[in-house]
Amino acid sequence: MQNATRNMKILTITDIQKMVQAIGLDHFFKRVIAALEEDFGRWDEFLLSPRHATHYPHGVIELMPCADQHLYAFKYVNGHPGNPLLGKLNVVAVGLLSDVASGYPLMISEMTLLTAFRTAATGVLAAKHLARKEAKSVAIIGTGAQSEFQVMAFASFFRLEEVRFFDTDPQAMSKFSRNLSRQKFRLIPCDSITQAVHHADIVITATAAKKRQSLLDIGDIAPGTFIHAMGGDCPGKTELSEEFLNQVKLVVEYMPQTLVEGEVQQCTAMCIYAELWELVCQQKYGRQDNREIILFDCVGFALEDFSILRVVYELAKEHRIGSELPMIPKPNDPKNLFGLLESSRH
Amino acid sequence: MQNATRNMKILTITDIQKMVQAIGLDHFFKRVIAALEEDFGRWDEFLLSPRHATHYPHGVIELMPCADQHLYAFKYVNGHPGNPLLGKLNVVAVGLLSDVASGYPLMISEMTLLTAFRTAATGVLAAKHLARKEAKSVAIIGTGAQSEFQVMAFASFFRLEEVRFFDTDPQAMSKFSRNLSRQKFRLIPCDSITQAVHHADIVITATAAKKRQSLLDIGDIAPGTFIHAMGGDCPGKTELSEEFLNQVKLVVEYMPQTLVEGEVQQCTAMCIYAELWELVCQQKYGRQDNREIILFDCVGFALEDFSILRVVYELAKEHRIGSELPMIPKPNDPKNLFGLLESSRH
Repeated sequence: MQNATRNMKILTITDIQKMVQAIGLDHFFKRVIAALEEDFGRWDEFLLSPRHATHYPHGVIELMPCADQHLYAFKYVNGHPGNPLLGKLNVVAVGLLSDVASGYPLMISEMTLLTAFRTAATGVLAAKHLARKEAKSVAIIGTGAQSEFQVMAFASFFRLEEVRFFDTDPQAMSKFSRNLSRQKFRLIPCDSITQAVHHADIVITATAAKKRQSLLDIGDIAPGTFIHAMGGDCPGKTELSEEFLNQVKLVVEYMPQTLVEGEVQQCTAMCIYAELWELVCQQKYGRQDNREIILFDCVGFALEDFSILRVVYELAKEHRIGSELPMIPKPNDPKNLFGLLESSRH
Repeated sequence: MQNATRNMKILTITDIQKMVQAIGLDHFFKRVIAALEEDFGRWDEFLLSPRHATHYPHGVIELMPCADQHLYAFKYVNGHPGNPLLGKLNVVAVGLLSDVASGYPLMISEMTLLTAFRTAATGVLAAKHLARKEAKSVAIIGTGAQSEFQVMAFASFFRLEEVRFFDTDPQAMSKFSRNLSRQKFRLIPCDSITQAVHHADIVITATAAKKRQSLLDIGDIAPGTFIHAMGGDCPGKTELSEEFLNQVKLVVEYMPQTLVEGEVQQCTAMCIYAELWELVCQQKYGRQDNREIILFDCVGFALEDFSILRVVYELAKEHRIGSELPMIPKPNDPKNLFGLLESSRH
């Protein structure tokens, strides 16, 4: 009559490292991009809802839920701009995946790394529909925590020959250079944004300053460029001017959220060409000619967390990665929850 | 230059069992009741917000956040009434506690057991203010999953001599009897609700049927009784008639929530005497004479999860219980998150 427990999977940072090592970074990105494409392609099947935010003067703590009829996911994520001065990360995250049929949790995973992966993979999914197929060069402005993830995700889909990069912090540029030194593409450090974006097929803006910036001048951007604008992601934090935005074709993840958090907080819904899912579902054209400048205003969306959580859950099962911990009671008699304490009472 | 990780505590079912064993059930309840009293007593310091619910035809999945200026907590909890037929629990839960200063998660814990503990402890906190000090007998209607937790919590505060119990399921009555056979109080199985509540000082209603019931008749309840009505906890699930409620003094946890989920979904705010915190903060009187019949309409509130999560976090540290898992990146350079994958790329 021993009462039992049911296990839940836990994926730590170490487990995600093992997973990426097991299948390779390139293949990992391909899996995530494929899952994102599948999930954005069945947009109507998702229960989307606004994130739940608890605001403090020094930061924010958010719960971002997203579910379909089979799986429920949410991410706990903070944003504490003062953390780096204290040797901590601005943003850390953990996520949970559960089974809708029973409501039982299936897995808890670290999501700080996963967030960087899924953000980069989402940029590539957008680029698949919005960049020129033959894109060979990427320029990245801002070589902070996200930068290598971004470039490696793009390298998993495009035949990159050249990566041009710029940051106001020379140490961040060295770190970027060091981390990507073994890749096939040429790494070209630049002295200015203008120099970096010159003739780039794909431009990624990934700066961290929480203020209104105007990084790019439309005159510097070559016709046919795809811009992955991922740095502007909360009210008051933008990387591009309204004037710039008015001269490009704009695509977003989810209009109600991006109009508050994205570059387009400076615009109205009228300025936005499409939501990403509309391209994936072929309800709207992606790139229509080789001269369009198209900007994907990426702020990070709960559906992307859902997609990567299901990918790592599948991979963890396939490769037997992660711990199984007894987090759920499994009493022989559902009315005998107290029986679980049996041993404690003797 | 090895990049490191930061640990987060994980408490499993086994860890909670160990914890209760280490300090004893009685002492555990005392700690939780004390934490609840402290937290309800500083009501104004909490950031309260509505729970986030995702509804399905067969169940619901909820996120219940609660925070003060130091700690942030939330509980993931489901409600799947069809689960018991499939050998699963109706409700399971996991919770997270994090540090507001950094936004970093501190602990993830099982919360199925903890929910049963905190619900029972909350009833006792209410009883401390609303029951007669010399209460010696408890009647419990419904001997399901919560019942023993309820009785043991009350036994940690009151000198119980007699526990009278009734359930429509004889097996549930046997289980209850078996689980509590070694306690000091007399166990008296009853053939009816009327028989069970006869002259009881404290009545606990803890039935599970999701429908409108009318378990108690005011004529059967002795003057001076305290009723802990905990079974009615969602729209359409009530245990007492409107007529009954109109004849007792009503106390709730949090009016906006209880008016939707509690017994008082049948009433208006006008019928409610007080919220629990008003008694704890001595803004309103608790029991005013020995003849009042007072009912605490308990639906379960996020603050209670906060309180028990901080208790088990403290106890886990004191008694070195739980696993420490590397869930948070700790890069030497906050801009070098990608460095964590170093080993994976070789």
